[in-house]
Parts: sequence; C-alpha cells; structure tokens
Amino acid sequence: MRHIISAMVENKFGVLARIAGLFSARGFNIDSLAVGETEDPTVSRMTIVVRGDDKTLEQVKKQLNKLIDVISVRDYAKKEFVDRELLLLRVEAEEGQKSKLAGVLEKNHAKVLVAGGNAFTAEFAGDHEHVQKLLEELKPYVIKEMTRTGRIAMAKE
Amino acid sequence: MRHIISAMVENKFGVLARIAGLFSARGFNIDSLAVGETEDPTVSRMTIVVRGDDKTLEQVKKQLNKLIDVISVRDYAKKEFVDRELLLLRVEAEEGQKSKLAGVLEKNHAKVLVAGGNAFTAEFAGDHEHVQKLLEELKPYVIKEMTRTGRIAMAKE
Repeated sequence: MRHIISAMVENKFGVLARIAGLFSARGFNIDSLAVGETEDPTVSRMTIVVRGDDKTLEQVKKQLNKLIDVISVRDYAKKEFVDRELLLLRVEAEEGQKSKLAGVLEKNHAKVLVAGGNAFTAEFAGDHEHVQKLLEELKPYVIKEMTRTGRIAMAKE
Repeated sequence: MRHIISAMVENKFGVLARIAGLFSARGFNIDSLAVGETEDPTVSRMTIVVRGDDKTLEQVKKQLNKLIDVISVRDYAKKEFVDRELLLLRVEAEEGQKSKLAGVLEKNHAKVLVAGGNAFTAEFAGDHEHVQKLLEELKPYVIKEMTRTGRIAMAKE
C-alpha cells in the first residue's frame, strides 16, 4: 500500500536526518521525498511517499508524532487530495521523429524550455497518473536525462 | 553562498538517511531537498539546496563522492542550469478582492485547481525568481496552506 505522508516540521538542523533515519530503521523504502518551505518560514513540510504495510506505518506515524521537532503528521492514503509532481527532462527523437515527439509533449502540456537538434528539454507538472501516462508515451524516444521533484499533496477542502 | 547539489544515488534503503546525516553533521542547513526517480529505476536523484561556505561544501562533496551508494555529484553553483520548483497553495482574498486575486494568479500562469468562496487552490511551477515574485504579489492575500517541492535543476546542454 502506497501512502503519502505529509509532516510539518520545525525548519531546524538535523530534523531531516532524524526522520529519514526513522523510516529507514523500520525498513520502509521511500519512493520520493520533497522538503520545502511553507507559509511559515520557521516550518518546513516534508512530503514522503512510502510503501509498506499499514500496521508498521501506523507505528512510524506514532513515532513521528513523538519527535519534538514534528508539529503534525497527515496521512493522505484515505483522504481526498490533489497531488502533483514536477519533472525536468531531456528527451531525444530519432532522425525524422522530432515533430512526432514535439506532438507528444504538446498534447501532454509539457513545456519545452530548450529545443536543439533532435532533443527537447522540457518541464512537466501533473498528478501521478498523468506523469505515468507521459512517461509511457515517451517510451519510443530516448530520455537522456530526467529529474523529478517527488510528489506533494494538499487536501481538497 | 547558495548551492544546488545534484547527486545520483542508488535507489536503496538508508541512502537518504546517510546523506542527510552527512550534511547535518557538518552544520549545513538544507533549504530544500527533492528526491525522485530518474530515467533508470535503480537510481534516484537528490537535489539539495544548501547554504554554507565554499570550503566546507567542497569537503561535503568529497565525502559524498566517497559513499558507496553515491554514483555522481554535481554542483550547479557555477554552471548554466534551468531550475524549477512546484507549489501547491490555497490562498484567500478578503471580501471584494477575489477577482483581483484571480488576476494575480492568472498573470503568473498559476493554474487554479479548485475555486470556492473567496479562496483558490492553485498549482504553480517556475524558477526560483518567479516563485519569489509570485509570493511577493500574494502578500496582500492570506496563504492558508502551501506546500513546495523544493528546487530541481538540469544543466542546459
């Protein structure tokens, strides 16, 4: 079961290492992690996508809540939320396939930042499903480089 | 001096905790961190924005390179790169200011996901400068909630 855990933490030295240690000690593999500032400069928000059984995850959440620098923990597994991820990628087409590749990027609303030769450097933001769809459609082409932010989420309320 | 460090690491259990520990042991504060998959499923890319003096950072980079699960380390401080960050935010206007707020979002190409009452839930992707500009223009309004991915970067080549 995949969970999106969102933790508000004090923007302090060492908090990240402590939290990462807590997950890894329990044998959770982190699919993605994003740590960024929030509306309050003293507070960071960590969004962690993990896979693991529900019972162990429940224990991890309890332990997170006990850490003095953790302000609140939210589990988006069963809640209504919007999720987004950002990708930067450089993708190349074979000779004669460039305009077809441009079409795939355009159809998916990826934004071309640099175009040169048969390659495009592009930016793409979307939910998990849309990211998977884009990567599926890019399979006939060569992804030379890709960097992803990891998912962030926000409750629909 | 602010640096964007990009490290390709083995997508393995515990690597994140080890790297976060390395930065925190040296007294670096991490502004943002993004960990996501790459074009190779066995490899993750960590993008870390840190502040610190150049000499100490040089040592951290050396130590990173020595870790067995670290494949490569890149410092974007002096290189040509594109950087992007993604934000999800819920922002509210006072009575009668709603259309003005909608205008700020539209002008900055933020994408409205949910509109209800005087509030908007929106998605925004841009480089560091543009993110700062948007947040500056949103100052007259109330940011109820915000979550950020942290910056990712890719060399322009």
